[in-house]
Amino acid sequence: MCKKKVVTIGGGTGSFMLLSGLKEYPIDLSAIVSMADDGGSTGVLRDELGVLPPGDVRQCLVALSESPQTLRDLMNYRFERGGLKGHSFGNIFLSAFEKVTGSFDKGVKEVGRVLKIRGEVIPVTALDVNLYMELKDGSILQGEDEINKCARLQKIGILKNYLRPHAKASKRAIRKILEADLVVIGPGNHYCSIIPNFLVGGISRAIIRSRARVVYNCNLVNKKGHTSGYSLGDYASDINHIIGQDRIDYVIFNNRKPSQKLIEKYNRKREMLVENCSSKNKKYPYRVIEANVLSNVTPKYSKSDVLAGQRAFIRHDSQKLARVLMKLI
Amino acid sequence: MCKKKVVTIGGGTGSFMLLSGLKEYPIDLSAIVSMADDGGSTGVLRDELGVLPPGDVRQCLVALSESPQTLRDLMNYRFERGGLKGHSFGNIFLSAFEKVTGSFDKGVKEVGRVLKIRGEVIPVTALDVNLYMELKDGSILQGEDEINKCARLQKIGILKNYLRPHAKASKRAIRKILEADLVVIGPGNHYCSIIPNFLVGGISRAIIRSRARVVYNCNLVNKKGHTSGYSLGDYASDINHIIGQDRIDYVIFNNRKPSQKLIEKYNRKREMLVENCSSKNKKYPYRVIEANVLSNVTPKYSKSDVLAGQRAFIRHDSQKLARVLMKLI
Repeated sequence: MCKKKVVTIGGGTGSFMLLSGLKEYPIDLSAIVSMADDGGSTGVLRDELGVLPPGDVRQCLVALSESPQTLRDLMNYRFERGGLKGHSFGNIFLSAFEKVTGSFDKGVKEVGRVLKIRGEVIPVTALDVNLYMELKDGSILQGEDEINKCARLQKIGILKNYLRPHAKASKRAIRKILEADLVVIGPGNHYCSIIPNFLVGGISRAIIRSRARVVYNCNLVNKKGHTSGYSLGDYASDINHIIGQDRIDYVIFNNRKPSQKLIEKYNRKREMLVENCSSKNKKYPYRVIEANVLSNVTPKYSKSDVLAGQRAFIRHDSQKLARVLMKLI
Repeated sequence: MCKKKVVTIGGGTGSFMLLSGLKEYPIDLSAIVSMADDGGSTGVLRDELGVLPPGDVRQCLVALSESPQTLRDLMNYRFERGGLKGHSFGNIFLSAFEKVTGSFDKGVKEVGRVLKIRGEVIPVTALDVNLYMELKDGSILQGEDEINKCARLQKIGILKNYLRPHAKASKRAIRKILEADLVVIGPGNHYCSIIPNFLVGGISRAIIRSRARVVYNCNLVNKKGHTSGYSLGDYASDINHIIGQDRIDYVIFNNRKPSQKLIEKYNRKREMLVENCSSKNKKYPYRVIEANVLSNVTPKYSKSDVLAGQRAFIRHDSQKLARVLMKLI
C-alpha cells in the first residue's frame, strides 16, 4: 500500500513539536522549513560565514531523527563559553557541511543521513534571503530577529511583509506539496516562522493546485504586540489571504484550558490564549476541529539553553496533535 | 580464525598516515593516542571549554573511518572566518560530544560510531594533562605547542620531560598492549607526539610485559633544534630508554631517497634526512628493516588548512608502510 504523503510547513519549535508526533506514524513525511531565521547562533553564523540559516532546519532534523538520544542531545547542545558561546552544535554541523559540500541542501541531506531521519527536511528556498516588514509609519524592520523583538507592530500597523532578494521555492518543496495528501501549516511564530514560507514564490500556488487537504494548527497563545487579540479566525484568515484563496480545509483548535496558574503567568506578560470566536462571527470557510491538544507536561529547559527564558510553557502535545491530524487522512 | 591484534602508539599526522594504511588489513586495530596536544584549535578548545585535546584523536578517527569521503572531509574542515576561525569541525564535534556525554572517552566512542570506524581509538589517558620540558638552563617549557616551537632544545639541552598532573594510562590502553601481537610506535613528532605517550604511568610497563613484537617506525626527517643530527639509532635508543628496556624488536627505515629537489628544499630549512649509521656504530639491539616506505605523491594542502605551511612533503606512504608491517605478524 502506498504511504500517505504529509507535508508540514513552518519553522522553529512549532515544527519540532509537530514532527516529533507525526514521525511515529507510517506516513511519507516532508518538512518544509522557513529560511528567514537570523537571530542568535543562526544569525552569527549567517553573518560570519555567509551560510544559510541552520537553526530551524536543525530542529526539524532532530525531531525526525531516529538515532540515539545522545546524538539528538548533541545537536541541540549549546556551548557556554569562549568563541563558540551561544552556538548550538547542530547549527555548526549544518554550516560546516554546507561549506564542505558547497550547498546547504546537500548539507541538510548529509546531516539527515547521520541522524538517520525518518522523512525529509526541505529548506523552502535555496536562496540566501532576508525577511522585511514595512510598517505604516514608513519604517522598515529588517530580519526575523528585529521583527520578532518589536513589540509595536500592531500599534503602528503592518503594511507588508516581503523577502529580499525575491526567492523562488525549492523544486522539491513544490513537488512535495503537489503530491501531498495532507498539508499541515503551523503552529509557530506567525510573522517569523509561518508567514515567511508563503513569501517564497511558488508555495501558495502549489498549495492552491495541490489536491491535498490543508489543515492549519492554530497557535495557543497570542504574541504581545504581534497578534494581540487575534482569534482563531484572524490567524486562519491571514494564512488564507497570503495563499490567495480560502484554501484551508480544517483548523485544529485546542479546547483544553491550561491551569489557571499558567494562564495568569502568561497574562501578566499580556499574552492571552487564542480564542475561537466563531459564534460571534460569520461562518468560517473551513471546519474547526476542537480537541485537547495541550501538553500537560511542564517542560524543564536546560541551563545551557540560552533561549530557555523565551520558551513556552503553554504548549501543544505532539502526540495528541498528531493523533488528531492522522484522522484527516 | 582469531584476528591478529595490532596496537599503534603515537599522535598527529604520523598516526593518521599509519592507520590509513593498516585499516585495509583484516586485523584487530587499536590506536593509542597522545593527549598532550595544546596548540591551535585544540589549545583554544582546551582553554575555553575545559575539554580534553581533540586534535590527535580526530585525525585517528578520520583515518579509521569507513564513512563516505564527505563526512571525513567534514571532520577536517577548518572554519575560515568569524568566531569559529581556525577550528576544525572534528575538534568541535569531539568537544561537544564530551560535554554532552560528560566524558571524553564516551565522546570518542560516539564519534567513532558516527564515522563508522574500523578498530578503536583510545586516548592514552583520561586525565587532563599538560606536557612540560625542563631544560639544562633551568627553564621550563610548558605545553606541546611551546615545546614544538622552541628551536633551541638541543643547544640548551633537555633535562627531562614530564606530565602534570601525573597521569595513569587508560585501562583499555593497558589491556590492548598486553593482548597485542604487534605494537607499532611512531612515526611522529618525537617530543610532542611519541614521547608523551610513555610519560603516562603504565604504558612502558605494559609494553615490557606484553608478548607483542614491538616495532618502531623511524622518522624520515630530523626536526631542526629538536633532533638535528639524530640517526636511526638515536631515535630508537630514546624510545628504549623511556620504556626502560631494549624492548624494540624492529626498526623500519626508509631506504628510498626523495628527489634531490625536495632534499634541498628541506636542507635550506636545516632539516636533514635521518640516516642509518649502523655500520659506524656498535650493533643495534633490534633488527633494522630497510624498505621503500616513501610517498612519491606530492601532497596538495587545502587553503583552509591553516597548518599547510607546516605539513611535510617528505612523507611515509601509508600503503607501503602497512605492507612492511604486515609481514611482521
